[in-house]
Amino acid sequence: MKKSQGSGPRFILGIDPGFGRMGFGVIGIQDGQMEAVDFGVMTTAAGGDFGDRLAQLVEDLHAVFTHWKPSVVAVEQLFFTNNQKTAIRVAEARGVVLLTAAQFGVPTVEFNPKQVKLALTGDGNANKAAVQRMVKQLLGLPKAPKPDDAADALAIALTASTWRG
Amino acid sequence: MKKSQGSGPRFILGIDPGFGRMGFGVIGIQDGQMEAVDFGVMTTAAGGDFGDRLAQLVEDLHAVFTHWKPSVVAVEQLFFTNNQKTAIRVAEARGVVLLTAAQFGVPTVEFNPKQVKLALTGDGNANKAAVQRMVKQLLGLPKAPKPDDAADALAIALTASTWRG
Repeated sequence: MKKSQGSGPRFILGIDPGFGRMGFGVIGIQDGQMEAVDFGVMTTAAGGDFGDRLAQLVEDLHAVFTHWKPSVVAVEQLFFTNNQKTAIRVAEARGVVLLTAAQFGVPTVEFNPKQVKLALTGDGNANKAAVQRMVKQLLGLPKAPKPDDAADALAIALTASTWRG
Repeated sequence: MKKSQGSGPRFILGIDPGFGRMGFGVIGIQDGQMEAVDFGVMTTAAGGDFGDRLAQLVEDLHAVFTHWKPSVVAVEQLFFTNNQKTAIRVAEARGVVLLTAAQFGVPTVEFNPKQVKLALTGDGNANKAAVQRMVKQLLGLPKAPKPDDAADALAIALTASTWRG
């Protein structure tokens, strides 16, 4: 599936937010067919200035937005853990994802983990392996995509694809 | 105090992060004199797309960074309340502040409310009125700056001024 085709496929970008590791996954949809066209992890080195890390993530995000011109961006919602310091940093990284989408004029949708599990497996309490199995199956991949952050991002993109019909 | 003077003053930007109301305050420092040169609140309307609200804040931040070319940006640290949903949104807004500072090449410092109170009044548990009194006094203002978000932002900028000698 190439992005240069005539009437062409539409692309959905899924993001699993983080500051050290941000998973991304792009699925292309055309004529009822879905394909994982790009996925991976954007990483930043620990110890650097946090603003610089955010700026680096934004550069990587810009590259993905510019290349794929997604019609929608699906971002995982945050739930708070005991480690509030990390949670704040993840939310700050999430903020620059939402900002970038707005600057590119791309609408965002947000899903929580339960919604992702439910959409993919029919069970809001499914385990990670079950979700990954469905990602692999729905996208016709030879094996579950790695690393996990990328698989999670593809799962979020798939959730958006079902959500939007 | 004008920003065009020869060797010139240096400017410190204080930010009290928020998404509906973001307080900002710029103090100029020259020859041991401090002055509030600009302060106010950047607002976004409730109900709009959150990414668009972040993009609007970034436009306002760009205007301040471009005009004052601050040598440092002081941002209040977040502490979590019971309203985690709001806390996440504030953190996301805070993320775009840190991003903007990095993109302008301006270093950031972060202070928690206790540090601000301690720096300004000598008492980490001082009340709001005591802090505002010190903001007014240190900056030679005829009265405490309004609204409160702007006063808080000036307090954070003042904390950075003492912190950095």
